[in-house]
Amino acid sequence: MLHIFEILKRRRSVRQFNHDSINKEILIKLVEAGIWAPTGGNAQTWFFIIVTNLEKIEKIKATSPGISGTPRALIVICQDKEFAYKKGGEVGRDVLSVMDSAMAAQNILLQACEEKLGSCVVYSFYKKGLKILLNLPNNIVPELIITLGYPKVIPKAPIRKLNGIYFFEVFQNETRK
Amino acid sequence: MLHIFEILKRRRSVRQFNHDSINKEILIKLVEAGIWAPTGGNAQTWFFIIVTNLEKIEKIKATSPGISGTPRALIVICQDKEFAYKKGGEVGRDVLSVMDSAMAAQNILLQACEEKLGSCVVYSFYKKGLKILLNLPNNIVPELIITLGYPKVIPKAPIRKLNGIYFFEVFQNETRK
Repeated sequence: MLHIFEILKRRRSVRQFNHDSINKEILIKLVEAGIWAPTGGNAQTWFFIIVTNLEKIEKIKATSPGISGTPRALIVICQDKEFAYKKGGEVGRDVLSVMDSAMAAQNILLQACEEKLGSCVVYSFYKKGLKILLNLPNNIVPELIITLGYPKVIPKAPIRKLNGIYFFEVFQNETRK
Repeated sequence: MLHIFEILKRRRSVRQFNHDSINKEILIKLVEAGIWAPTGGNAQTWFFIIVTNLEKIEKIKATSPGISGTPRALIVICQDKEFAYKKGGEVGRDVLSVMDSAMAAQNILLQACEEKLGSCVVYSFYKKGLKILLNLPNNIVPELIITLGYPKVIPKAPIRKLNGIYFFEVFQNETRK
């Protein structure tokens, strides 16, 4: 069992998957991980569509520049924008629901890492086409796609710079150029 | 040591803190946890301001309806919007950098939970005033505040509904009313 900090560091954006399929119970557990993230004003305005049909994944991939490799499953994080507006007005609909999706996504990525799955969070996809493929009504908007599969290749971590990106009390002269 | 899923579930939005101050090394570790989150196109356009000065925290709280209790530290997650635009155009500046901030926030909340700190993520604050207090130049925008402190009261988890919020393959009739 890994310490959480090790999982935070071990999670990679994986873009090459092998052909092993993913147990449905694991996919549901990933959604469960997602809904433990906080939501603005406890709005919980999300829906999650789990796609495992390989033909459908291919179709979604065809219009999603952000999807790499051949994932064995997708979790599409959606927001009910009507409900989000009801809960939090324009800010709820336009900002909080987006942030909520991202925070849920991070939980899903971390749990996927724990399950030895590779994952990648994808924003670059064709929303209108995806809405049709997933049968989403007008008020439900797909915000993010998480691709999933057992990794064929685990890439190295991009370099993270800690120096010069945090400051105590006040911002200091920008060191990044 | 806790399994990651237990930490995902144990993290609460804590709004009542005791008076113990937080070790600076822990605060820096929280930032480090944050930067292990993924960023759109590996942009890493963030800055983190750690506020521990209690007078400054009081001043920030005075214009931040979202801050409850008397946190002993704040981590303000900021984005360099000019840099984000350079990295990812309008989408990078207006969407990805916001999502990146939220994903980093989630890592920080989880690591804070591991460190037995209480935390709460706050969106409701007065941006212009905060920019002045933190000495942020025009291009640097505060996206989220994370309040931190050792918990006086750990609230119960709001109920999460797993049933009816996920579907396989396609969205089905909305059950939520």
